[in-house]
This record gives sequence, structure tokens and C-alpha cells, in this order.
Amino acid sequence: MQSIPGYTYGSPALNPSPLSLEDLEKLKASLLFTDDDHTALRQAGEVLADQVEEILDVWYGFVASHPHLVFYFGGPDGNPSAEYLAAVRKRFGQWILDTCQRPYDAQWLAYQHEIGLRHHRSKKNQTDGFGTAPQVPMRYIVAFIYPITATIRPFLAKKGHSQEQIERMHQAWFKTVVLQALLWCYPYVKDGDF
Amino acid sequence: MQSIPGYTYGSPALNPSPLSLEDLEKLKASLLFTDDDHTALRQAGEVLADQVEEILDVWYGFVASHPHLVFYFGGPDGNPSAEYLAAVRKRFGQWILDTCQRPYDAQWLAYQHEIGLRHHRSKKNQTDGFGTAPQVPMRYIVAFIYPITATIRPFLAKKGHSQEQIERMHQAWFKTVVLQALLWCYPYVKDGDF
Ligand code: HEM
Ligand code: HEM
Repeated sequence: MQSIPGYTYGSPALNPSPLSLEDLEKLKASLLFTDDDHTALRQAGEVLADQVEEILDVWYGFVASHPHLVFYFGGPDGNPSAEYLAAVRKRFGQWILDTCQRPYDAQWLAYQHEIGLRHHRSKKNQTDGFGTAPQVPMRYIVAFIYPITATIRPFLAKKGHSQEQIERMHQAWFKTVVLQALLWCYPYVKDGDF
Repeated sequence: MQSIPGYTYGSPALNPSPLSLEDLEKLKASLLFTDDDHTALRQAGEVLADQVEEILDVWYGFVASHPHLVFYFGGPDGNPSAEYLAAVRKRFGQWILDTCQRPYDAQWLAYQHEIGLRHHRSKKNQTDGFGTAPQVPMRYIVAFIYPITATIRPFLAKKGHSQEQIERMHQAWFKTVVLQALLWCYPYVKDGDF
């Protein structure tokens, strides 16, 4: 695997997640996430692996078409920074694979926490040294559950699987996007309210 | 309409939402919510109106089967309170109809804010005078986007609509559940981070 600048999954320098594995189990139960979902996600990973660039084109196109969203990729002059967008894009592509392939363990939780911090004022703009908007507001992270879930389906359907298999992969994807978006909210939330 | 204890939609005593209608428009755009979704939701309202009790049976059954969830309906002795569950149930049923039938205007926003407060420590347990858990943690509100979305589909499919119409209603439902869950997060979030 080529190394991706700023991608620190598994690094011992990461802070551990504030959530325990038991917290994670309760969350998974609350959104009906089971081992079958991991199986379906592994299959989704095989389906999506060679489509990552097309998926990112769709997502980036969506963000780019909304000034109030692309704002958060603003560079020093306030305009969307192509360099910033490109730097994040590589890690975003890797995230698709991690979502499908990684075990959801303490290391995974730690990187979820890190991704939350990177959207939040605590750590946004530090990884690449770009960016002027101090943070992505929490409301949009949760809102994106919809587009990130809905737009993946056509890609899951492109490799000749049955409707039932596609549906299975899609439901697992939906669950993990909800799970990750909520984990990323942690730094935004008042002490004790998460 | 029979009056529902504690249901204060449209009451002049409600605080206005901290969000403006312009904020709402940006959120709707971020999750691809358009006028077509309102149309689909109105249709969903017709489909669901006489199935409200069955839907609530499914949702309540799900909560009841998880001790870490039903905990938040605990009464004075710490056990789940049938009285508390029953009191909330009536407003929950009305929420299904409101979600489908109401215009999403300032009044609607104000009641979304109120529902958020009622899950949060600011106002939980006050409406019915029951309840001991100080609040529903924010993580579970976002997590419930999955079960509240996935479990509605069979009910949308029960009145003989085409697959395409069912899918249309279901996507609109998915969007509005994401939108409302995120609006309810407001009281949990640090100043300026929402
Ligand atoms: C479900 C919702 C979202 C997903 C799945 C997602 C995914 C990601 C991923 C995987 C990264 C790179 C993490 C890393 O450094 O390894 C990232 C970073 C970033 N995302 Fe998101 N994101 C979401 C919501 C948003 C929203 C709503 C915006 C605002 C338009 C946004 C803007 C950004 C920015 C600006 C960065 C770079 C942050 C930095 O300076 O390090 N994201 N996102
Ligand atoms: C998408 C997620 C959720 C939806 C759609 C939802 C819906 C509702 C609605 C409509 C009400 C009544 C609001 C009113 O007073 O008019 C309510 C109240 C309540 N909900 Fe939720 N809810 C969600 C998440 C949760 C979760 C995760 C829990 C915890 C198990 C929970 C526990 C409660 C409790 C305890 C009340 C009563 C609060 C009070 O004392 O006033 N809810 N919910």
C-alpha cells in the first residue's frame, strides 16, 4: 500500500478513544449492527475497491455544488483550495476501504476519534497545514449520513450481485455511516452529554 | 383530534428554535431534501395513519428488548415505568403524523427544539412528571436513525403502492429522520459547535 500523507491509522501516537469496547457494543446493538454486517461490508469492500475514484467524484461533486459546504475546504484566500481538497481526498478514499475491511476494535475506535477531532476546531486544518474555516459544524456531519448512504447504492450494484446481496451490503453501509458519524460528534458535545 | 397530554406543538409558550429558516434551507440542501420529499411524506402519512399503533409496537418492542435503552424510561424504582412509556407513546404516535403532514416552518422548528430539550437533561422527565434517568445520551439519538428508518419500510409497503412509490416515500422518511435527529442534538452541543 502506498503511504498516504497524514493518514495515521494504528499509530501509537493517537489518543485512545474516550469510548470503551463495551460502549461500542451497546451502540452496535442500538443500530442492529451484527457480525453479518461485517461480512456484508467485506463483500462491499471487494465491490467498491476499484470504484473509489468514481465514488469520490460523486461526493466531491456534491460538496463542490454547494457553496455553504465547499466553504469548509477554503484555503488562505477564502476560496475552495484545490490542494486541501486533494490532500483530504486520498484519506477519504482509504476510509472507504477501512470502513469495509478493518475490525472495529480499539484501534479503529481511536481513529474514529481522530477523524472527529479533524472535523472539529480541536484539530481541523492541522493534518495538511491547509484550511481556514475553523471547523465543520456538527449539524452537517450528521446531515451527511443521508448523501453518503444514498449515493453508494449504485456502486454496490455494479458488479452483478443479486438484489438481496446488494440490499444486504447497503444496509450494512447505512449502519456503519450512522455509527461513524455519531462517533465523530464526540468532540462537539458537552461534557457528560455524549 | 383528541388532545394529547404534554403535546404542545404550536404553543405560543414554546421557545423559538435557535435555528433560522435559512439554516433549515442549508440543512435541507445538505441532505437533498426537496419539495418532492414533502409530497412523498404526505403520501406516507396517508399510508401510515392507520398503522401507528403497530409501528409503535415495533419500536417499543425494540427498546424494551435492550436493557441499556429501556433504562431511559425508568421510573422512581429504577425499573421501566409502564406509565412513563404510555405517556410518551401518545406523543410519539402524533410525531409520525406531524413528520408527514406538517409544513417545516418556524413552528415546526420550535417543536423540534422542544423535543431535543425533552431528551436532554434540560427538560427530560418534566412533561409527564415521570422518569429518573437524567437524559438520553446524544449518541443513541443519532444511532436510532437506523432502526427508525429501516423498520418503517414494511409499513410503507402495506397499501399496494408500486416499488418506486414505496422507495420514494422511504427515502423521504430517511431524510426527515436524519434532519430531526440532528436538530434534537442542539442542546447537547458546545456553544458554537452545532
Ligand atoms: C458522514 C459524513 C462525513 C464523512 C463520511 C466524512 C469523511 C471524511 C474523511 C474520511 C476525512 C479524512 C480523515 C482523515 O484525515 O483520515 C474527512 C476530512 C474532512 N472532511 Fe469530512 N466527512 C463527513 C462530513 C463532512 C462534512 C459535512 C464536511 C463539510 C463540508 C466535511 C469536510 C471535511 C474536511 C474539511 C476535512 C479535512 C479536515 C482536516 O483539516 O483535517 N466532512 N472527512
Ligand atoms: C431518531 C430517534 C428518536 C426519535 C424519532 C424519538 C422520538 C420521540 C418523540 C416523538 C418523543 C415525544 C416528544 C414529545 O414530547 O412530543 C420522544 C420522547 C422520549 N424519547 Fe425519544 N426518540 C428518539 C430517540 C430516543 C432514544 C434513543 C431514547 C432512549 C432509549 C429515547 C427515549 C425517549 C424518552 C425517555 C422520551 C420522553 C422524554 C420526556 O421525559 O419528556 N428516544 N421521543
